[in-house]
Amino acid sequence: MTGRKDILEIDLEFTLEKIVEFIRRHTIEICRDGAVVGLSGGIDSCLVLKLCVQALGKDRVIAVILPERDSNSANIKDAVKFAKELGVKYIYKRLTIILSLIGIYKLYPPTFFVKRSFIEKFISKKRKEISDKVGKDIFIANLEGSSDRELCKGRAFYKVKHRLRSAILFYYSELNNYLLVGCSNKSEWLTGFFVKYGDSIADIMPITSLYKTQVFRLAKFIDIPDNILKKAPSPDLIPGIVDEEVLGLTYRKLDLILSCMEHGYANDKIIKIYTFSEGDINRVREIVKKSEYLRKWPIELE
Amino acid sequence: MTGRKDILEIDLEFTLEKIVEFIRRHTIEICRDGAVVGLSGGIDSCLVLKLCVQALGKDRVIAVILPERDSNSANIKDAVKFAKELGVKYIYKRLTIILSLIGIYKLYPPTFFVKRSFIEKFISKKRKEISDKVGKDIFIANLEGSSDRELCKGRAFYKVKHRLRSAILFYYSELNNYLLVGCSNKSEWLTGFFVKYGDSIADIMPITSLYKTQVFRLAKFIDIPDNILKKAPSPDLIPGIVDEEVLGLTYRKLDLILSCMEHGYANDKIIKIYTFSEGDINRVREIVKKSEYLRKWPIELE
Repeated sequence: MTGRKDILEIDLEFTLEKIVEFIRRHTIEICRDGAVVGLSGGIDSCLVLKLCVQALGKDRVIAVILPERDSNSANIKDAVKFAKELGVKYIYKRLTIILSLIGIYKLYPPTFFVKRSFIEKFISKKRKEISDKVGKDIFIANLEGSSDRELCKGRAFYKVKHRLRSAILFYYSELNNYLLVGCSNKSEWLTGFFVKYGDSIADIMPITSLYKTQVFRLAKFIDIPDNILKKAPSPDLIPGIVDEEVLGLTYRKLDLILSCMEHGYANDKIIKIYTFSEGDINRVREIVKKSEYLRKWPIELE
Repeated sequence: MTGRKDILEIDLEFTLEKIVEFIRRHTIEICRDGAVVGLSGGIDSCLVLKLCVQALGKDRVIAVILPERDSNSANIKDAVKFAKELGVKYIYKRLTIILSLIGIYKLYPPTFFVKRSFIEKFISKKRKEISDKVGKDIFIANLEGSSDRELCKGRAFYKVKHRLRSAILFYYSELNNYLLVGCSNKSEWLTGFFVKYGDSIADIMPITSLYKTQVFRLAKFIDIPDNILKKAPSPDLIPGIVDEEVLGLTYRKLDLILSCMEHGYANDKIIKIYTFSEGDINRVREIVKKSEYLRKWPIELE
């Protein structure tokens, strides 16, 4: 693709300034004294945390780290280390007992003494089995709703984790009269790759205008550490589930297709420029369409 | 007001049919097998539960009752009794330990051995003190955001209860592939008298087109029991807090003003018809305006 204009290119300096100004302005406009960020150790939340620090100063930012039984301990370590590096106050609270009281771990019993890599392989196999049974890929089946018992269990299991986190993040925000700053990006938002009323809610959303590819570029630009930049993005809700596997294509490819769609390109044109398969393009179109209801409020009777 | 057309009048038979059809249609359209309703024992959730039963039959509806330390036990008893009367399956789960693990009860320590009526009086006095300190009524101060320590504490304390409830209600819905049916009404929605991402979220909202006055009429029309119809509406989050006291006027008056606003009436006209004070009308206008952001998604950077 040498010589062709990069459709995902952004002016990093300008974008950075715009976001920092956005955070600062809304903190003032909504009369808040600072910002709370839920920190997972992934690239989005690390980027947003650092942007908040640049906007408000480290003394007016709180990072909240909320691991649970299935969290990848490497991510949690990264989160703690990063919060310390930035010098922000952080709250660390394990949610395992709470989620256990809600009842979710009964669905997938404990796996003490079992190596994480083994669990990850087991889950990957299980996902394939479910997919074969329902006759479509799980990501799309999950968007559609299905009575399949295993799918229902899985959905209920992972979604409540993010929703509980949001409830607690808002709690800390309100307690301190801080803004809750969310970490959704454009790739997630357009594909429904988020938990409705879970990680997709906050007071403000500063990076929803950026595709994941652009999140990476901006994160690199403001010196987010390599250990965070280089790991495979994952929702970290179920062991072994990484974004690109669930989405069924790389972020690079997904973002290019989404961006072409945003520009109104027909399939022919996209294929001609990027030599992607029509199947991949149509799958992205289907996902965007089927996830539409996730980007809306509850359906109301007029 | 004899002889004047009742601006809040609705065709009850027609409204009932429309709502029942709405619930039935969306259950099919979103491929769900039934409905979950969070049941507080108040009029809105009892009405919605009964409407769901009429739409789907009692075997496809689950009532979820989620009391906590500060819930009024009379409401909880009403909820259980009503679920039994309708013959629906109900899940009863106390949230006290979970909320305690989140840390909220430390904000307002336990009040064992203290009569509820005494607590209620104490809270009413406390609210007046805070209101005097911040120099405005608490309802409006809460819409605006404020650094006042007592206000922050109060907000964080009650909001997390509804948000936790929503997370758990969604959990049961998803586990059963059921729709989560919400209970927001139009009076609450327009005044911001709800918890954003708390009681205001669900898959579908069948009674948001009804003012509270109309909710009462429809509830009476479909024979919701007298004990539920006749108690003072309350969010049941903090002892002693009832809707009309917080809102600062009766639902009858509020709904008439909201309805006049909907029809585009100027203050003069409203005063001429209903002889309300200009202060009351302007207060409602202020509340509607200041609560606008609660009816929107997070603020995004474009």
